[in-house]
Amino acid sequence: MTARKIILDCDPGHDDAITMMMAYAHPDIDLLGITIVAGNQTLKKTVHNGLNVAQLLDMDVKLYPGMPQPLVREQVVAGNIHGKTGLDGPTFEALKRTAEKENGVQFIIDTLMASDGDITLVPTGPLTNIATAMRMEPLIIPKIKEIVLMGGAYGTGNFTPSAEFNIFADPEAAHVVFKSGAPIVMMGLDLTNQTICTPDVIERMEAIGNKAGKLFGDLMRFTLKTQFEEFGLEAGPIHDATTIGYLIDPTLFDMQDMFVEVDINRGPCYGRTVCDELNVLKQTPNAKVGKKINRDGFFDLVADCIKTYK
Amino acid sequence: MTARKIILDCDPGHDDAITMMMAYAHPDIDLLGITIVAGNQTLKKTVHNGLNVAQLLDMDVKLYPGMPQPLVREQVVAGNIHGKTGLDGPTFEALKRTAEKENGVQFIIDTLMASDGDITLVPTGPLTNIATAMRMEPLIIPKIKEIVLMGGAYGTGNFTPSAEFNIFADPEAAHVVFKSGAPIVMMGLDLTNQTICTPDVIERMEAIGNKAGKLFGDLMRFTLKTQFEEFGLEAGPIHDATTIGYLIDPTLFDMQDMFVEVDINRGPCYGRTVCDELNVLKQTPNAKVGKKINRDGFFDLVADCIKTYK
Amino acid sequence: MTARKIILDCDPGHDDAITMMMAYAHPDIDLLGITIVAGNQTLKKTVHNGLNVAQLLDMDVKLYPGMPQPLVREQVVAGNIHGKTGLDGPTFEALKRTAEKENGVQFIIDTLMASDGDITLVPTGPLTNIATAMRMEPLIIPKIKEIVLMGGAYGTGNFTPSAEFNIFADPEAAHVVFKSGAPIVMMGLDLTNQTICTPDVIERMEAIGNKAGKLFGDLMRFTLKTQFEEFGLEAGPIHDATTIGYLIDPTLFDMQDMFVEVDINRGPCYGRTVCDELNVLKQTPNAKVGKKINRDGFFDLVADCIKTYK
Amino acid sequence: MTARKIILDCDPGHDDAITMMMAYAHPDIDLLGITIVAGNQTLKKTVHNGLNVAQLLDMDVKLYPGMPQPLVREQVVAGNIHGKTGLDGPTFEALKRTAEKENGVQFIIDTLMASDGDITLVPTGPLTNIATAMRMEPLIIPKIKEIVLMGGAYGTGNFTPSAEFNIFADPEAAHVVFKSGAPIVMMGLDLTNQTICTPDVIERMEAIGNKAGKLFGDLMRFTLKTQFEEFGLEAGPIHDATTIGYLIDPTLFDMQDMFVEVDINRGPCYGRTVCDELNVLKQTPNAKVGKKINRDGFFDLVADCIKTYK
Repeated sequence: MTARKIILDCDPGHDDAITMMMAYAHPDIDLLGITIVAGNQTLKKTVHNGLNVAQLLDMDVKLYPGMPQPLVREQVVAGNIHGKTGLDGPTFEALKRTAEKENGVQFIIDTLMASDGDITLVPTGPLTNIATAMRMEPLIIPKIKEIVLMGGAYGTGNFTPSAEFNIFADPEAAHVVFKSGAPIVMMGLDLTNQTICTPDVIERMEAIGNKAGKLFGDLMRFTLKTQFEEFGLEAGPIHDATTIGYLIDPTLFDMQDMFVEVDINRGPCYGRTVCDELNVLKQTPNAKVGKKINRDGFFDLVADCIKTYK
Repeated sequence: MTARKIILDCDPGHDDAITMMMAYAHPDIDLLGITIVAGNQTLKKTVHNGLNVAQLLDMDVKLYPGMPQPLVREQVVAGNIHGKTGLDGPTFEALKRTAEKENGVQFIIDTLMASDGDITLVPTGPLTNIATAMRMEPLIIPKIKEIVLMGGAYGTGNFTPSAEFNIFADPEAAHVVFKSGAPIVMMGLDLTNQTICTPDVIERMEAIGNKAGKLFGDLMRFTLKTQFEEFGLEAGPIHDATTIGYLIDPTLFDMQDMFVEVDINRGPCYGRTVCDELNVLKQTPNAKVGKKINRDGFFDLVADCIKTYK
Repeated sequence: MTARKIILDCDPGHDDAITMMMAYAHPDIDLLGITIVAGNQTLKKTVHNGLNVAQLLDMDVKLYPGMPQPLVREQVVAGNIHGKTGLDGPTFEALKRTAEKENGVQFIIDTLMASDGDITLVPTGPLTNIATAMRMEPLIIPKIKEIVLMGGAYGTGNFTPSAEFNIFADPEAAHVVFKSGAPIVMMGLDLTNQTICTPDVIERMEAIGNKAGKLFGDLMRFTLKTQFEEFGLEAGPIHDATTIGYLIDPTLFDMQDMFVEVDINRGPCYGRTVCDELNVLKQTPNAKVGKKINRDGFFDLVADCIKTYK
Repeated sequence: MTARKIILDCDPGHDDAITMMMAYAHPDIDLLGITIVAGNQTLKKTVHNGLNVAQLLDMDVKLYPGMPQPLVREQVVAGNIHGKTGLDGPTFEALKRTAEKENGVQFIIDTLMASDGDITLVPTGPLTNIATAMRMEPLIIPKIKEIVLMGGAYGTGNFTPSAEFNIFADPEAAHVVFKSGAPIVMMGLDLTNQTICTPDVIERMEAIGNKAGKLFGDLMRFTLKTQFEEFGLEAGPIHDATTIGYLIDPTLFDMQDMFVEVDINRGPCYGRTVCDELNVLKQTPNAKVGKKINRDGFFDLVADCIKTYK
């Protein structure tokens, strides 16, 4: 098996940082580049955070800043969860790495257009970069092998009662992506909330004894606190990392084909991923939606990835 | 303890019929009258069905036809679940009973205005009668002791991916009721789907050996079939009857205070009861929402009610 | 020619008062009853105002209070235009007349159902009474000869940039009425703003020298002021009275058949009467929409009506 | 006076072609570049048309293709008005000119960022390029001297009863632009419909006897036909050219400051420019909206521009 080519499109962010770490580490993944989007914090901060993580882990991969604002709505960020910097918790050395000049949207377009249809997009933030790329060059759509994204929920949301943060932060972009016709794998809160990093998990990863393990601990000890304070969750899930987990070992996941539509009406369901779980609409499914994850198996994968670092 | 005074507002309907049977039977409930609304079928049919059930069970209670159409939207009915008559399954004798001349909306207004604030409304169909009464005479609102309704869901809907039938059939009415300020108990699909009448339950009720038990069996054998065909459910829930169950013995129910808003935007979430399960909006709760039912205890109650009939 | 049978459905209101005066006075109109709705002010005030006008003018016609609140939305009133009482300006003697016990909605239903299809509804306030009657008894719809209403605009609104007050005060009711299939004549702001009562008009009516002329003057001198302050209009139009003017002499009016839909989306066009003036939608027209009025001819009619009073 | 620096952003289109001709010709305008957007036809066709016009008129200016699709909605084009090619009517020689490789959105960003705040944007098609540029690089917003656009209406629309084509083709983009804070001049249908090119105007321009005059005639004889067929207009307006007319001589125009908001609700007013003509909302105006044009003066300007060509 050849490694799966991906572009990681993220807004680091605690769980984005772990996703970066895993995507770079695992031999089954060929990380072509990282595009950054505003989301958990402003673009300036998410780029800074991404560079910090890449520098700390000596990642030989380029970072391309993309969209600093959502397509249409006013910007919202998730300072309540990720802190003022967007990556509160770890301490980083002075930043020497720099981002690419090329815009992330252009990188996505150029890379896909030059490809043989074998590239998977892995968005773990708002879908602004992906949607803009699709609208700027619709010919990329048939070139996309798959979009494996973190976002949405068919149950209760986390930022509003209806909406998960990534989708709520740019519902119109999500609307574009889910209607695009590209094959979608959606890891929503229904599944990702099963990945809460309880203290025993954190201790296990830290015990690996390298800088990746320490980073994991520094990150998750922070969100453990905010997730409890905001949602009463026992600990913080690593939502975004489920995307890479799925690409490495899909057998850890129970998925269901569903027709998914994003509500862009500006009412109480703005930003909801409406998932036809019971198929009452009799529409052709456009997404595989995550329902259950083998939590133990998943954390084994995380540990495997951490161990690859020095 | 004195019996709880209620007005049952329903659209019979299979589970409405069982609700009528229970409400009339149980000594803790004082059934002041039954108002009928269009919903599972047209008003003409739901009135006819209500009269049939009342005649079969010799119920000494008056039926008042109310609204034949929703407040604003175009009418939808649930022929897929309840059949062409709205109460397919049982065979009834020729109907001799007649409905009252007084409109159900007026009956609700007059009864509440003459009361001491000790009357509970129990709507198990679309909320058209209740909302119309509230808008026609807002002074009834502080007179309502409680509204214990079947409708909505914080999880997946049954008529659309977002909406449960009773609310979808008149979202604007539900919007009015949930914003009214009256205390609300909401039995949504999340809870009511736990009351599926598997064959063993049906056999148990039939074995009681009276006409009420036979009616139960005739009704639930029909919806057992349609619920399986439409939703892949193992059998048919008796959604509506949970309202009476709650009034008789609330200890059988796990409830959670939530802020609930009905989406009346005409998008994919039209008719959704948006329930703030995690309290992210920090609004004052306006409803107790059902989460879990003690299924065995509930069916014991149903059996108790059936046994009171000759 | 026999006199045209009408039910006047209004929310007095200055121009409603003049409409009452005209409808009662003119021999071509057979005023079967007046139903009152909340609108320019609360129902309590509009009923009070209607009774005051009826008493002052010795009108032998019954007043039926209807809906105190809109169908779905929260209530808005037009205190900025009609003052605190809803009919600021004139001084009335102590009120001896009383309203009927029967609800205006029920009066509309009963009167139409007992008719031969020869009754015209003339709503000059929010359409709450009419819509409720239609939803409570849809069989009235084919009995309605015509609905001649004041409301809406295809140009600019007066309460929002998009919406005229009567429609904005209950957009959902207007939505129901315009979709009902009943034949509609719509006098919107485009036409009614042409009826501004400049001082010369007021002086002409007052010079008639009777109580009706004095009432006209007392009313219009007040709105002259508020219309100028709110909209910069030279004087106050008598919007509502155009409906009666049309029924007496339609040749004074330029009308155009249009398809009209009411926007009930809760955005900046909530309550707009969307009129397909250029027929770009190729829908069957559902309304005759007023474009131009012969102002001189119309005020001659008003004067004729005033002169019939002692 | 120094010439006014502009970027023309258009979707040629008949009236766009005339706008190109005028913008290039007049000494008071310094045309920095032309960006092309999908609108009247697909981007492929509007680019082709723009190149054809530039080649025919020997225009020494670069064309940059921008967005081929609207931000969020599904694409609509105006084949009914502009024909299959988007510029039916004239015959062009074989096309030798080519468009730039750089994306129009990037050109707008780069040019504005390098400027001293003295550049005016002149969009005469859907606002997709402008909105995308604003969201991709919000720092351009304070650099924009003014946006002088053709689009919208405070009266009746031309593509729906509520919406003018340019705005309807990308309401979300228009929403972004009108909320951006950049100073806006809006030439809506209310004004632009006053520029109908009756046969005498066409003959006058053709009589100038050069290729620009011939192009004018070939273009306007075609839209004369389609505008009559679609809207019953006496002839075709040259909507877009009013923008350049305004930049050359604003004294020909009656403008009013208004607060303008674009309705992005997906109901009957989707894409309406809601203009607060009467200032009922008491918001700070964000646009100068065109009300009246000195038609004779304007066509004199058009003739002046045509005469500058050989």
